[in-house]
Amino acid sequence: MAVQTVATPSTPADTSSEGSTGSTGSTGTAPSAGTDAAVDLGPASGLTCRECGTLFPLGPIFACAECFGPLEVAYDLPEGDPEALRRTIESGPANIWRYAPLLPVPADVADKPNLNPGWTKLVQADNLARELGVEQGKLFVKDDSGNPTHSFKDRVVAQALEAARAFGFTTLSCSSTGNLAGAVGAAAARAGFRSCVFIPHDLEQGKVVMAAVYGGDLVGIEGTYDDVNRFCSELIGDPLGEGWGFVNVNLRPYYGEGSKTLAYEICEQLGWQLPDQLVVPIASGSQLTKIDKGLKELIKLGLVEDKPYKIFGAQATGCSPVAAAYKAGHDVVRPQKPDTIAKSLAIGNPADGPYVLDIARRTGGAVEDVDDAQIVDAIKLLARTEGIFAETAGGVTVGVTRKLIEAGLLDPSLTTVVLNTGDGLKTLDAVAPTSQATTTIRPSLDAFRAAGLAG
Amino acid sequence: MAVQTVATPSTPADTSSEGSTGSTGSTGTAPSAGTDAAVDLGPASGLTCRECGTLFPLGPIFACAECFGPLEVAYDLPEGDPEALRRTIESGPANIWRYAPLLPVPADVADKPNLNPGWTKLVQADNLARELGVEQGKLFVKDDSGNPTHSFKDRVVAQALEAARAFGFTTLSCSSTGNLAGAVGAAAARAGFRSCVFIPHDLEQGKVVMAAVYGGDLVGIEGTYDDVNRFCSELIGDPLGEGWGFVNVNLRPYYGEGSKTLAYEICEQLGWQLPDQLVVPIASGSQLTKIDKGLKELIKLGLVEDKPYKIFGAQATGCSPVAAAYKAGHDVVRPQKPDTIAKSLAIGNPADGPYVLDIARRTGGAVEDVDDAQIVDAIKLLARTEGIFAETAGGVTVGVTRKLIEAGLLDPSLTTVVLNTGDGLKTLDAVAPTSQATTTIRPSLDAFRAAGLAG
Repeated sequence: MAVQTVATPSTPADTSSEGSTGSTGSTGTAPSAGTDAAVDLGPASGLTCRECGTLFPLGPIFACAECFGPLEVAYDLPEGDPEALRRTIESGPANIWRYAPLLPVPADVADKPNLNPGWTKLVQADNLARELGVEQGKLFVKDDSGNPTHSFKDRVVAQALEAARAFGFTTLSCSSTGNLAGAVGAAAARAGFRSCVFIPHDLEQGKVVMAAVYGGDLVGIEGTYDDVNRFCSELIGDPLGEGWGFVNVNLRPYYGEGSKTLAYEICEQLGWQLPDQLVVPIASGSQLTKIDKGLKELIKLGLVEDKPYKIFGAQATGCSPVAAAYKAGHDVVRPQKPDTIAKSLAIGNPADGPYVLDIARRTGGAVEDVDDAQIVDAIKLLARTEGIFAETAGGVTVGVTRKLIEAGLLDPSLTTVVLNTGDGLKTLDAVAPTSQATTTIRPSLDAFRAAGLAG
Repeated sequence: MAVQTVATPSTPADTSSEGSTGSTGSTGTAPSAGTDAAVDLGPASGLTCRECGTLFPLGPIFACAECFGPLEVAYDLPEGDPEALRRTIESGPANIWRYAPLLPVPADVADKPNLNPGWTKLVQADNLARELGVEQGKLFVKDDSGNPTHSFKDRVVAQALEAARAFGFTTLSCSSTGNLAGAVGAAAARAGFRSCVFIPHDLEQGKVVMAAVYGGDLVGIEGTYDDVNRFCSELIGDPLGEGWGFVNVNLRPYYGEGSKTLAYEICEQLGWQLPDQLVVPIASGSQLTKIDKGLKELIKLGLVEDKPYKIFGAQATGCSPVAAAYKAGHDVVRPQKPDTIAKSLAIGNPADGPYVLDIARRTGGAVEDVDDAQIVDAIKLLARTEGIFAETAGGVTVGVTRKLIEAGLLDPSLTTVVLNTGDGLKTLDAVAPTSQATTTIRPSLDAFRAAGLAG
């Protein structure tokens, strides 16, 4: 089919800290990105504006040409026979491609070279439940540190990669200060794409290494993270950026759909049931909104029984614009300047903030935040109860879960799923000051006896 | 059944760098470890001496009371109906417990709290194959960085944990300088055991944090790693160590069996076929010998068709006692003082060295080594071709694979599986000097154009 590209080469920024911010302006796309050929992205039928509902053909665009609202993927989903669909999924691969019929990817996606993320463990967290006062058997941690580069970003990058393939892009790119850089570098390497990732020039040494090791180009930008993002937006609108897919900018509508797979997996792993409550971290807010979208799709398709569920959002106090708006009863989110150890969530002006507020209120959830000390405590709580070493973002969700229970907002007798979206090995500094040897002794039994650690 | 414990409280060291060394002397066990009750470890029927064949009842012992040879687990395996067994396995959980009928664990092991490691990806590595000159579709990387604490140690610790449960131990322990500490700390936390891990007092800060975060006791020992090991052996023989399971000492026979699951998974993931060639890292040599044991079991059970396979061992040149013995045509391994970046393989006096030599020669494999620069090159080769960021041990196997192909020892037309046993995030220092930003520029299109990275 011949599709029309809504191409408006222009410059304004749309990303921040690996997520979209509220300040859009461009509708995206490199001038010559090829969407004239038939684009096969499986059940994806087009892009639709979340504000005005205008429908656009599939292409590397991310904002509505009518109202500048964000675009999301629309589908022709395989309705009609939930049992058959369930069997198809269950006989699929142990990764996100088992849900290919519900994603913007071609049907043969599992045969293409990619990192095959997903199908991470849903851990029944009875030890943590005891500490939090949750009923035994009711608390679960969805542990996305099990992904190939150890964060949930592998899910979203895998979707963006398929879109990049479909649109004929040859370079995969992003701006990043952490998880996303590794996810893009690794996925591009495996899939045979060139990658070029942009980072602030003064990024911590460890993060530079994690991003550079996959052999793509890594460009330090002299300036702040905002400068990096502005530069990337310029590049997308310039002929220099021809053939470039920025996973979280011009491929953003596809990228975001990867988070739906968290909802699918959680329900399937619960035996095709909706959880009663979910605690989800908020950076741009995209993940939370896509999880809600995924749950609604499962209901519509008859894959799970319809029943109420509550979605709770979790932020770090040092970057809590959505929690602040929620508590104040506002519909709009007032930007903040981030100052928290939870850097993977540090988006001061989250693009999907208003949608998150709407979902939290509509489902009967809430948005709460915890400070840096509570984040550290929660990381260590999860580690010592379940043996899961979470990134700071996981400390945020576990800490918020505790706070919500104490406040009576989260019901400890209901099935609750808490997301851990990243790996503690990437944020060692957060726990280093309080994770040290118990004691140091001479190598003798007498010294050991004196230390009082026997028995 | 009443079983007799072969208890010889004594002191000599048996471990080094997380693995057993050649210098045994004690036959192990804390004086009062309870093996008088019926011990249910599934198909495990006893322990047998690998030297003199003497059979012992199941218990926390690790060396033969007759000849001081190492003990290994003997089984009553479910022979007779391979199809039924294959179906049982295939319908099992997506972790090592799908092989419970072949492991020293109770049948209901999957219901007990543990980290459920295994069933990691077997990645068809066509990009790497192209670089190494291996036929397309024939090269695979078994990527054990996907385990819960991101190394293969989760497999072996999970076995030791079940033995510890069966013997009534309440503390899980080990000496470690790296991967094992995290694996023990995490597994113990999840399973409700106390843990106490011993490390050299001057261990790098990052490794201390990774070991301490799970909340168990972490004891720094003033001295070298050898001092730590000597101390642990003393502790096992003393009443102070009562109720303590040292995963790699008095639980070593069970612990080692975890490596069999690598063989099982590789064959199942290849469609119940033996690979033609395997490249396995050598630390103590235990992993390689247990992989061979696992392959032989699959043949005996009729789960795979019998055919020749070659096992190649891989060492770092800076700690290559087995490779040196292999090349010199010796049957005995002469200890070395390790000096290599591949610290997880740095066992200078590997207990299973002679067995490794025997297997490499018997199967038509070889033992080869690569130096530190080649290890770094290989880590980066694997990262840029397949998006897999390996620990130094993975650099050793990939580097050795390349060397073996160049030497004509490994046939590039045959199905070859290369093991990556750990995660690059834990050995960032190895690649840091050569994994840096391509360039640093001002945030302007002109500066980007001048950098020559567009297109």
